[in-house]
Amino acid sequence: MNNYPKDKCGVFGIFGHPHAARLTYLGLYALQHRGQESAGIVSCDGADVYSHRGMGLVAEAFTEEILSSLKGHFATGHVRYSTTGSSLLINAQPFLVETSKGFIAVSHNGNLVNSRSLRSSLEKKGAIFQSTMDSEIIVHLIARSRKKSFEEALVDSLSKLKGAYCFVFMTRDSIIAARDPNGFRPLCLGLLDGGFVIASETCALDLVQAKYVRDVEPGEILIINKEGLHSKKPFPPARHSFCIFEFIYFARPDSSIFGQSVYLARKNLGYHLARESPCDADLVMPIPDSGNYAALGFSEESGLPFEMAFVRNHYIGRTFIQPSQFIRDFGVKVKLNPVKEVLKDKRIVVVED
Amino acid sequence: MNNYPKDKCGVFGIFGHPHAARLTYLGLYALQHRGQESAGIVSCDGADVYSHRGMGLVAEAFTEEILSSLKGHFATGHVRYSTTGSSLLINAQPFLVETSKGFIAVSHNGNLVNSRSLRSSLEKKGAIFQSTMDSEIIVHLIARSRKKSFEEALVDSLSKLKGAYCFVFMTRDSIIAARDPNGFRPLCLGLLDGGFVIASETCALDLVQAKYVRDVEPGEILIINKEGLHSKKPFPPARHSFCIFEFIYFARPDSSIFGQSVYLARKNLGYHLARESPCDADLVMPIPDSGNYAALGFSEESGLPFEMAFVRNHYIGRTFIQPSQFIRDFGVKVKLNPVKEVLKDKRIVVVED
Amino acid sequence: MNNYPKDKCGVFGIFGHPHAARLTYLGLYALQHRGQESAGIVSCDGADVYSHRGMGLVAEAFTEEILSSLKGHFATGHVRYSTTGSSLLINAQPFLVETSKGFIAVSHNGNLVNSRSLRSSLEKKGAIFQSTMDSEIIVHLIARSRKKSFEEALVDSLSKLKGAYCFVFMTRDSIIAARDPNGFRPLCLGLLDGGFVIASETCALDLVQAKYVRDVEPGEILIINKEGLHSKKPFPPARHSFCIFEFIYFARPDSSIFGQSVYLARKNLGYHLARESPCDADLVMPIPDSGNYAALGFSEESGLPFEMAFVRNHYIGRTFIQPSQFIRDFGVKVKLNPVKEVLKDKRIVVVED
Amino acid sequence: MNNYPKDKCGVFGIFGHPHAARLTYLGLYALQHRGQESAGIVSCDGADVYSHRGMGLVAEAFTEEILSSLKGHFATGHVRYSTTGSSLLINAQPFLVETSKGFIAVSHNGNLVNSRSLRSSLEKKGAIFQSTMDSEIIVHLIARSRKKSFEEALVDSLSKLKGAYCFVFMTRDSIIAARDPNGFRPLCLGLLDGGFVIASETCALDLVQAKYVRDVEPGEILIINKEGLHSKKPFPPARHSFCIFEFIYFARPDSSIFGQSVYLARKNLGYHLARESPCDADLVMPIPDSGNYAALGFSEESGLPFEMAFVRNHYIGRTFIQPSQFIRDFGVKVKLNPVKEVLKDKRIVVVED
Repeated sequence: MNNYPKDKCGVFGIFGHPHAARLTYLGLYALQHRGQESAGIVSCDGADVYSHRGMGLVAEAFTEEILSSLKGHFATGHVRYSTTGSSLLINAQPFLVETSKGFIAVSHNGNLVNSRSLRSSLEKKGAIFQSTMDSEIIVHLIARSRKKSFEEALVDSLSKLKGAYCFVFMTRDSIIAARDPNGFRPLCLGLLDGGFVIASETCALDLVQAKYVRDVEPGEILIINKEGLHSKKPFPPARHSFCIFEFIYFARPDSSIFGQSVYLARKNLGYHLARESPCDADLVMPIPDSGNYAALGFSEESGLPFEMAFVRNHYIGRTFIQPSQFIRDFGVKVKLNPVKEVLKDKRIVVVED
Repeated sequence: MNNYPKDKCGVFGIFGHPHAARLTYLGLYALQHRGQESAGIVSCDGADVYSHRGMGLVAEAFTEEILSSLKGHFATGHVRYSTTGSSLLINAQPFLVETSKGFIAVSHNGNLVNSRSLRSSLEKKGAIFQSTMDSEIIVHLIARSRKKSFEEALVDSLSKLKGAYCFVFMTRDSIIAARDPNGFRPLCLGLLDGGFVIASETCALDLVQAKYVRDVEPGEILIINKEGLHSKKPFPPARHSFCIFEFIYFARPDSSIFGQSVYLARKNLGYHLARESPCDADLVMPIPDSGNYAALGFSEESGLPFEMAFVRNHYIGRTFIQPSQFIRDFGVKVKLNPVKEVLKDKRIVVVED
Repeated sequence: MNNYPKDKCGVFGIFGHPHAARLTYLGLYALQHRGQESAGIVSCDGADVYSHRGMGLVAEAFTEEILSSLKGHFATGHVRYSTTGSSLLINAQPFLVETSKGFIAVSHNGNLVNSRSLRSSLEKKGAIFQSTMDSEIIVHLIARSRKKSFEEALVDSLSKLKGAYCFVFMTRDSIIAARDPNGFRPLCLGLLDGGFVIASETCALDLVQAKYVRDVEPGEILIINKEGLHSKKPFPPARHSFCIFEFIYFARPDSSIFGQSVYLARKNLGYHLARESPCDADLVMPIPDSGNYAALGFSEESGLPFEMAFVRNHYIGRTFIQPSQFIRDFGVKVKLNPVKEVLKDKRIVVVED
Repeated sequence: MNNYPKDKCGVFGIFGHPHAARLTYLGLYALQHRGQESAGIVSCDGADVYSHRGMGLVAEAFTEEILSSLKGHFATGHVRYSTTGSSLLINAQPFLVETSKGFIAVSHNGNLVNSRSLRSSLEKKGAIFQSTMDSEIIVHLIARSRKKSFEEALVDSLSKLKGAYCFVFMTRDSIIAARDPNGFRPLCLGLLDGGFVIASETCALDLVQAKYVRDVEPGEILIINKEGLHSKKPFPPARHSFCIFEFIYFARPDSSIFGQSVYLARKNLGYHLARESPCDADLVMPIPDSGNYAALGFSEESGLPFEMAFVRNHYIGRTFIQPSQFIRDFGVKVKLNPVKEVLKDKRIVVVED
């Protein structure tokens, strides 16, 4: 039971749209690069709550029939990433439970640094845990808070957390977004047909055709319900410190995060690299696709020709049978093949993410 | 979230055998008639705990690979029955959680009559619920009990339950069986190669080749661990009242429950029927297979010839496509076909369960 | 390529019904005991031909969507039996091909004794074979026959076959049934809503609610099309010799084959057994379900009480994981469990099929 | 039955390697872009022949267990492409049959222009067809040829074909490759550990680490068996005319076909485009991935900056649920998202394949 979740996940929330679950499906689809282990959606029509979580990709976890059953005008969704082999449906999100304050669903991207001590302290008070998710901790804290309203209990509970978090909560009447005071992970706000959209990256707003409004600010709590949108900043300000891996590895190049284009940020890294480490070479080429943008930047700055002489096999699947011992150095070949005619007798700069 | 479980399930436990999970698989297989919705096994080697639950039949929910991963010398298993369409993996058992008292796994057959009030009172104290199972209630009670030892906390918690229950609990060092003071549901104890076996019906002992020792008594708690077997009767005696449906419908005819052969009990019902409602007829026949034994009893007592002139189709599957409107009175035909040559011009007594 | 088919299969044909394919599905379902390896249906609306074959049971091989796509007012279907492990979709029937005489579909139950020599002679003339089925041989013979009409070519080709066959052929305008001159295998004719039905056993007529008319006679060819039904007997009469395994093992007890009730025929075998081999015993019991009827007959003739003290597990599935070495004498236990209370200290006659 | 195959398929053959089937699996994997509908491998050890064909991608159609069963030191494989919905396993290749000349397996890439007349003429002579594949025609021609040896019969039969073909045949002792006299489709020859490899494109040689020797020449027949490699050119020379779609669409950029690098050929098309249609623009960008190389060429020739401002979603799956009516202009968005920050207020040349 030591399958602690990794911190690269995708979260999505929407309030005030007749196709809330379908748009969440699309939003998760756009955020698929942030997690391929499991996908889930919880929706609500103000009375009943509807939920489905499944293993694998968004397109595998949902069918037309399941999507149709997820009724209501607000919803939250989650894609989960795990580097360990022990991926389990019980760790899929959104995490949905019944408490004395009504049902709570929660989607989480982040990594709490004090989760073990919080968990152990809760267990001592009689809490029982079924998953290894940080999301389960925040819900226990809310359920046990002596504050009467959900909002007060939420602020009370968030104040106990240390580390990175972007949460999308859902109750019977609201969607609530919360980002940690340091702002480690990205979270943005959009508008769609008069409703509100919350997403880890702007590429999800693009796909559902929502208009980007602004980032959810570090330490900010956004409460969205039929009264409209309401912002709270109950925590003392902290030093802003976003995660650099978001730019160079996690986020999609067509997203803007932390107020900046990921594409241009990666290209900029290429400029810097060319300036800091100039080489005497004939051409520059990326490991596709993640190295493309830095390689382009390197090429622009250095003046070296840009070539795309590694060709990817687009059909790599999870069930591919490795040829094992009888082929030497097989490793990377199945994914990337060099174009010999381009590379022959050339001095080459290869840029990787 | 109103998927309350039904009370016809099968539970199994074993302690002290190197093939604990495999024998649990066989035991569940023998108890398959008590639940076809989901199946699960939790095993333990004294250090780590291993768990798998899946939807459908035992043979569908487990593979050789999964069985091999369920290590350890003690285990508990469960097959679940549900009459509702809303069957969910989250309601599959054994229910496994982490508490401050260590992990607890629980398999349950029964139906608590005060589950709603217990649940609501627990939620008010900050408990969060993920399933609709009675098993989750007992675990919350144990986790919150102020008694220090697991045994004391268990007795404390069981004393709050009203209704029918047969539990098999598992902790890091023990298997514990508990049957409610009225003894509504069957539960028996067997011996196998020096280890102990707990099962809902004796047919599970037969399949794993365990020797039947005795029934777990109403109100009894059996603690089984490396110290051996230890019995407790902490509750005041109650009126014994077993469920008649176990004899006429739930249990397998080759089991003995409540100290009686199910086969003979059903045959006996046929004797009584023949005496109470004698008929002037030419033959007696059962609706197979459940009516076979009472019809045999009826035939013996009445002297009427016994015929098996309804023939079952053994290939009825869950995916059979109904011919709907264009065939009249199709209903029962697909399962049972009468043998016209036997029935023609005869007066017939048909015995059903 | 040595997967020669076994001779226990089920065939079905229907002409003149708007739900031809759906009724064929039901007919195959009733004949499922004759073959569980693969199932197929070919239907025709007089213009286009529709076909689906799949591995496994009828209920597995067809979906509602597939059934809906099988249009037309006439159809033929087949369930295949194989004792070998090498079951292949390419050997599933009905066998459907294009020839210069138009399309031919054929469903076959039987076993030709001269198939190797026919096959080898056809190959020498340039025929190519894709399957190991006898059905492919008859189609090659028809395709190569110099007779112009399909009927003449069929008679010409059947005359070259030696051994057991019941064929249902389908062309763009007709269903044709043919039974070998010895009449080794059963084949019957029924009427349904003005249309005609052909089936291996009468239990298939029962399920589709067709009225049994008569058996297709040994050596008879029945041509059914919009002109009605037309019978031909082009072959010299042969000694009638039906297969005894049909009565004691293959056919369903609720069928009548070769003009006799299978139920009564099996019961009769029990009478004979009781007379030929009387025993001094306390009771007689069958190995269920196939031994039920002979055991009933034995009981009636001998006067010994009839008990059903072997209980079958109804959930035996193809994926059951054997417990292998660690359980002794496990074999039959998983399928049948004796009722100890009935058998204890008794002298028992066990009747098996 | 009008599912005529399209001419973009991939073929592979290997002779003289202990891992023939596994290398064929890898070869098909490298050729996956030429066909995703079905995949198949036939292998032989000189005595027995082993075969498996399945629907979908290579990685879906084969399992470790299946691959292990495909024994022998020579093999041929095929991936099939179809633009129609009516894809059927019966049309999967390699096509394997028994004839009087022994078994023949055949993998085909191409499109015969006289297939209908050949087929109809064969049917008049009594041939029966089960598939709609051109491969079935060539095998009928060989089976019926009066030439005694397989080689003579093959030449005789190929001489009747008009149109595009690349065949890999397999008999009990040989692999035979044949390319049509015009050389419409690519086919190349490689060497691996002393054995021979045949493939549609050189990228398959790369993946199995075979050394490229030369293209199979237009009109050439290569017979490979334990005697070694033997070349035949029995047909009068024809005008060489390769298919331009191979360069701009079908083939992988890391392959060399018709003696030329596909990558450089595409880049060259970009040069020409820049020269023929110069534009006054700010930047040039491709529709990824197929337009990448021509766009690079355009950029080099025109001097316009190269940007990759369309970002592909790598998780597009076959089961993606379209949002249908409620999203306007959704079409391409799910696959490609523009990077707004790069494109804003710019004049752009977009290059597509």
